Amino acid sequence: MYIGRVKGTVVSTVQHSQYDGRKLMLVARLELDGRESTSAYDICVDTAQAGVGDVVLVLDEGSSARQILGKRGTGPVRAVIMGIVDRVEI
Amino acid sequence: MYIGRVKGTVVSTVQHSQYDGRKLMLVARLELDGRESTSAYDICVDTAQAGVGDVVLVLDEGSSARQILGKRGTGPVRAVIMGIVDRVEI
Amino acid sequence: MYIGRVKGTVVSTVQHSQYDGRKLMLVARLELDGRESTSAYDICVDTAQAGVGDVVLVLDEGSSARQILGKRGTGPVRAVIMGIVDRVEI
Amino acid sequence: MYIGRVKGTVVSTVQHSQYDGRKLMLVARLELDGRESTSAYDICVDTAQAGVGDVVLVLDEGSSARQILGKRGTGPVRAVIMGIVDRVEI
Amino acid sequence: MYIGRVKGTVVSTVQHSQYDGRKLMLVARLELDGRESTSAYDICVDTAQAGVGDVVLVLDEGSSARQILGKRGTGPVRAVIMGIVDRVEI
Repeated sequence: MYIGRVKGTVVSTVQHSQYDGRKLMLVARLELDGRESTSAYDICVDTAQAGVGDVVLVLDEGSSARQILGKRGTGPVRAVIMGIVDRVEI
Repeated sequence: MYIGRVKGTVVSTVQHSQYDGRKLMLVARLELDGRESTSAYDICVDTAQAGVGDVVLVLDEGSSARQILGKRGTGPVRAVIMGIVDRVEI
Repeated sequence: MYIGRVKGTVVSTVQHSQYDGRKLMLVARLELDGRESTSAYDICVDTAQAGVGDVVLVLDEGSSARQILGKRGTGPVRAVIMGIVDRVEI
Repeated sequence: MYIGRVKGTVVSTVQHSQYDGRKLMLVARLELDGRESTSAYDICVDTAQAGVGDVVLVLDEGSSARQILGKRGTGPVRAVIMGIVDRVEI
Repeated sequence: MYIGRVKGTVVSTVQHSQYDGRKLMLVARLELDGRESTSAYDICVDTAQAGVGDVVLVLDEGSSARQILGKRGTGPVRAVIMGIVDRVEI
């Protein structure tokens, strides 16, 4: 899992039933110093009503992502926004 | 998942039944600034009738890719073109 | 698996039952020369009562992580802190 | 999946039954500009009678690789040479 | 799979039954030119009685690693030392 910032939404011809009503979000990975990565990102299925600019927790493993979507471990997905990050205590 | 641009097709001796009638496409990953990566790419099974130059959504996880191919979770594949990207709203 | 140093804790809106009573820790990967990576990190579920500053063993594979959590191979998780590292003998 | 060039064979003490009669090949990843990567490579189980110098299609996912080996989804393998690449049309 | 050189052993509080009698080894990845990577490494469960300095074959996929450990595909592990490398013929 990693922390990222939502940069935008992706509109695609994908019409998979698993995605109905869920947005595909472009999330840039945040580095350890808090800056956005210039290269690392994922297109994530949103499960946390995240909006552009939000700092979120990304779960980047297929089996886990499918469980979050709640469909008995099936569904074509690799990464999901799992929650909004309230704060990181260091 | 990531966004990429189709660069070409791959012709190989691979004769797996799962691939019948499906093209193998070379897809370059697009970076956050919209440029093509010079190193990150995947050879993807096309499921979206994508053509060279199209901007596409790539699903780069085996279990998910197999579900998209629709063969009960079997089949030797790691990455598929899942859809054409219409636009990214930032 | 890799060796990392705990940098802090993450507070998120994630309310998954699997996580009850377990902390989400930000762990920076340690390089071969012992320095912390400036880019490689994971948000890990803690299973070893690790604290900030501890050097830990991180298991970064979903199926394994789920087994460590002890819930019959289910649960949305990709990385866990598996143990405290006492020493590395080189 | 990616495209690589076979660089040599690996002789090891590994004596796994799944590997009987199959060579372990060192395959360097080819970059988008056709050059060999200086760092990215895999040790692959050959399923295509590939020889040194051949340009090949590498399937780098365990579940898929096991299916190619044809042993009901079992066997310790992460990457296989899946076929010889005849040409890439760009 | 990749080729690496054993750099040392890791002593940790991890007390998982699967690991009884097996060492955790720090293995640095070898690059294509034979040099050790300065950043890529894995903590591996040893299944080949490898010693410090040995050049080894590393299997870096969880399902495969579990099969090598011989416990019916269970066990928390992502990477194992699968064998000693006798030579690479290029």
